[in-house]
Amino acid sequence: MEYTKINEDLLEQIRKAVGSQNVFTDKDALDTYCHDETEDLKYHPEVVVKPVDAASISALLRLCNAFHVPVTPRGGGTGLSGAALPIYGGVLLSMEKFKAIIDIDTENLQATVEPGVITEAFINAVAEKGLLYPVDPSSKGSCFIGGNVAHGSGGPRVVKYGTIREYILNLEVVLPTGEIIWTGANTVKYASGYNLTQLMIGSEGTLGVVTKIVTKLIPKSHHTVLMLASFTENEKACAAVSAIFRAGIIPSALEFMERKGVEWVIKFDDIKFDLKDDVNAFLLIEFDGDDMDTIFKDCEKANLVLEEFDCIDVLFADTAQQKEDLWRMRRTMAESVKSNSVYKEEDTVVPRAALPTLINGIKEIGTRYGFESVCYGHAGDGNLHINIIKAGMSDDDWKNKLKDGIVEIFELTTALGGTISGEHGIGLVQKEFMPIKYSEINLNLMRGIKSVFDPNRILNPGKIF
Amino acid sequence: MEYTKINEDLLEQIRKAVGSQNVFTDKDALDTYCHDETEDLKYHPEVVVKPVDAASISALLRLCNAFHVPVTPRGGGTGLSGAALPIYGGVLLSMEKFKAIIDIDTENLQATVEPGVITEAFINAVAEKGLLYPVDPSSKGSCFIGGNVAHGSGGPRVVKYGTIREYILNLEVVLPTGEIIWTGANTVKYASGYNLTQLMIGSEGTLGVVTKIVTKLIPKSHHTVLMLASFTENEKACAAVSAIFRAGIIPSALEFMERKGVEWVIKFDDIKFDLKDDVNAFLLIEFDGDDMDTIFKDCEKANLVLEEFDCIDVLFADTAQQKEDLWRMRRTMAESVKSNSVYKEEDTVVPRAALPTLINGIKEIGTRYGFESVCYGHAGDGNLHINIIKAGMSDDDWKNKLKDGIVEIFELTTALGGTISGEHGIGLVQKEFMPIKYSEINLNLMRGIKSVFDPNRILNPGKIF
Repeated sequence: MEYTKINEDLLEQIRKAVGSQNVFTDKDALDTYCHDETEDLKYHPEVVVKPVDAASISALLRLCNAFHVPVTPRGGGTGLSGAALPIYGGVLLSMEKFKAIIDIDTENLQATVEPGVITEAFINAVAEKGLLYPVDPSSKGSCFIGGNVAHGSGGPRVVKYGTIREYILNLEVVLPTGEIIWTGANTVKYASGYNLTQLMIGSEGTLGVVTKIVTKLIPKSHHTVLMLASFTENEKACAAVSAIFRAGIIPSALEFMERKGVEWVIKFDDIKFDLKDDVNAFLLIEFDGDDMDTIFKDCEKANLVLEEFDCIDVLFADTAQQKEDLWRMRRTMAESVKSNSVYKEEDTVVPRAALPTLINGIKEIGTRYGFESVCYGHAGDGNLHINIIKAGMSDDDWKNKLKDGIVEIFELTTALGGTISGEHGIGLVQKEFMPIKYSEINLNLMRGIKSVFDPNRILNPGKIF
Repeated sequence: MEYTKINEDLLEQIRKAVGSQNVFTDKDALDTYCHDETEDLKYHPEVVVKPVDAASISALLRLCNAFHVPVTPRGGGTGLSGAALPIYGGVLLSMEKFKAIIDIDTENLQATVEPGVITEAFINAVAEKGLLYPVDPSSKGSCFIGGNVAHGSGGPRVVKYGTIREYILNLEVVLPTGEIIWTGANTVKYASGYNLTQLMIGSEGTLGVVTKIVTKLIPKSHHTVLMLASFTENEKACAAVSAIFRAGIIPSALEFMERKGVEWVIKFDDIKFDLKDDVNAFLLIEFDGDDMDTIFKDCEKANLVLEEFDCIDVLFADTAQQKEDLWRMRRTMAESVKSNSVYKEEDTVVPRAALPTLINGIKEIGTRYGFESVCYGHAGDGNLHINIIKAGMSDDDWKNKLKDGIVEIFELTTALGGTISGEHGIGLVQKEFMPIKYSEINLNLMRGIKSVFDPNRILNPGKIF
């Protein structure tokens, strides 16, 4: 695609649009914003802007639309699919100055928040008022709520509380052509034309720049119980997942971890954990509620189910510290794997009873292609993150043959009724795999929608399709 | 808009497309399908078709797209916004033969169902397997699940279980140009490009014809408790609604009913109910769960809240019959009002703490314009149905001035952060009010999306915008 390079003239106009104090062209800035958390990919922008309000973004986008300059919006830079990489150079639009929690409305159980707020800061702010915003991806300590909206991000509590789609009521959005709109209404129900709010969620910054977010909140439970169940086999642990739901129990989190993931976390993060020899897989299961008796009843029911799947033992986290340690183990798993090896991460999702078939298939494909893998993830949602490890694969095979293995993984995912990303998005690195799941007709509908919002394709071009 | 009239030649081709036994042009058929439940509106189609499979619909739409013949899809015909009215004539496409519950997957807690299945039949079928599909609009005994998808329908249990958007995972859709696609994946999470499933939900049959629906299901609770709280004033009852949530309680239903609604139901439906003189408003509150102790604790907490709002008394439904009677009272309210008077129905939704302001505003507007109103609805979601009653209004005022009053109601709704329909949709009768809530920019985005899916505007034209 041909875009206009930013010359001194254009740069001056960009400074006028967003304020010169918010425009950066120094090497440090360009280096800092040339990558996110996706493998080792680097694409340098020509300029980094950090606007402070929607009006500036509107002026910026009008300008870039007129001159055909690409603009790549960026949240916390924690993305795993490369959606925030400025692959055509141009303007890197960092939302980091949109930091206000504008309102926590305890009457309506809603909040209005800017997209640059760190997810965990928002979760903590509403928790102080006894409320829950249950969308907490592993990167919650550094990702932005705006990035979560852009990616349809999840986290462990989706399994009970639903996805981010349920918690985003309304969005202020600057369109690529510069107009500022609200997408919907501040209501939990909405049947007033095409749902532009839902269309924006998961559109990865390709349809507009979100500048305000209205979220739903719910009352926060007073108690949680966290248990770690260990199994001899991946397959048994995965099979237990759907059985728990079939028993009529809905945990507030149900995470799967493979042994190797735990090994690497112990090495990386200095977590004290007694990893027994016969254990090969774990389920981390949380129940929450206001009534301990009810929670314990659910735990007992879950225990009975786990026994049917040859669960070796169940460890209950007794203290807040133990809970935090177990959660940290799960949350730092991606980072631990990265620190240990060249890797590629995939984000498969299938109907949850298909998990045993999926994980066995992944291992079988790995054996054929010569890669190892560390699997973990939100098993209760059928969402399995696969960290593919180079292991004994030659550099040449890693570069040239691995892709065929990934294609096989996604073909399997698709055959099981699943899709190629549950919460990380498509961005740059998964777009070549979209045709495995989606017909050209589907992709053309998406391209058509893109053209309606962004006729000149200036906003985050080259992503998704 | 100019469309091609259906001549004998075209009719013959339609017969070939869907099978001549599925094509009807007799007066009875045209009369039956010329209206839905929207006021007394009637628009006759030129032909009624009742295809039996997606391939026929594909052939039909290819034909109508080529010859520019309008096609209006129809579910159970229970719509309240006129979305199923064939306002330009053409083909009325009834989905009534799509009646199969294809699969209830108890392993994954999912079902695959055809759009012509009656909602209540589906709810009952999954209940037999211990599962819950919680989307149950008042018309559940006659509406189709496909129509529910098209309208983003709700019902009383949205308040705890979320909207239909959370329960629709994947859709088979015939596009207006004839291609058949699946919109997504059979997974609870999805971050794989623009969410076409969510875009289809609530699009009122203007973007495609849904031919298969994959739903999420959840374990069904074993117990419910239903209580009816009575109040001296609408405002107090409405104010209690948000207070219940603020107390950390989430009921499985929280419905508001005005006295006059109950009076008319008693008259219409021969329900035995002791309506006391000092009672002017009711809240129907349901709690569900697996543990009666927990449910009773919630009831006690709710009672304490209700007392703060001068609740007169609380009636507990002791038997299944009493529960059914109270629910029937709520469900037949629309029908009762209709049987009593010329009416117009509006479907406002606001953030729930704004309900007292909304209901007072409606009454004040009614006083100025001379209409009465009966209000009831899913108060827990801030969703208030307003039945506007002609009362002492002259025919002339009803015809010419009422619209200004409705505009005022929607302006108030919008000012309170709400929108003009929570679950009934825009269809034909609300589209003139869309500009109250949505800018021309929003509407143009919707029109643009429509053009991507339906470039020749043959599918349900003249609806929404």
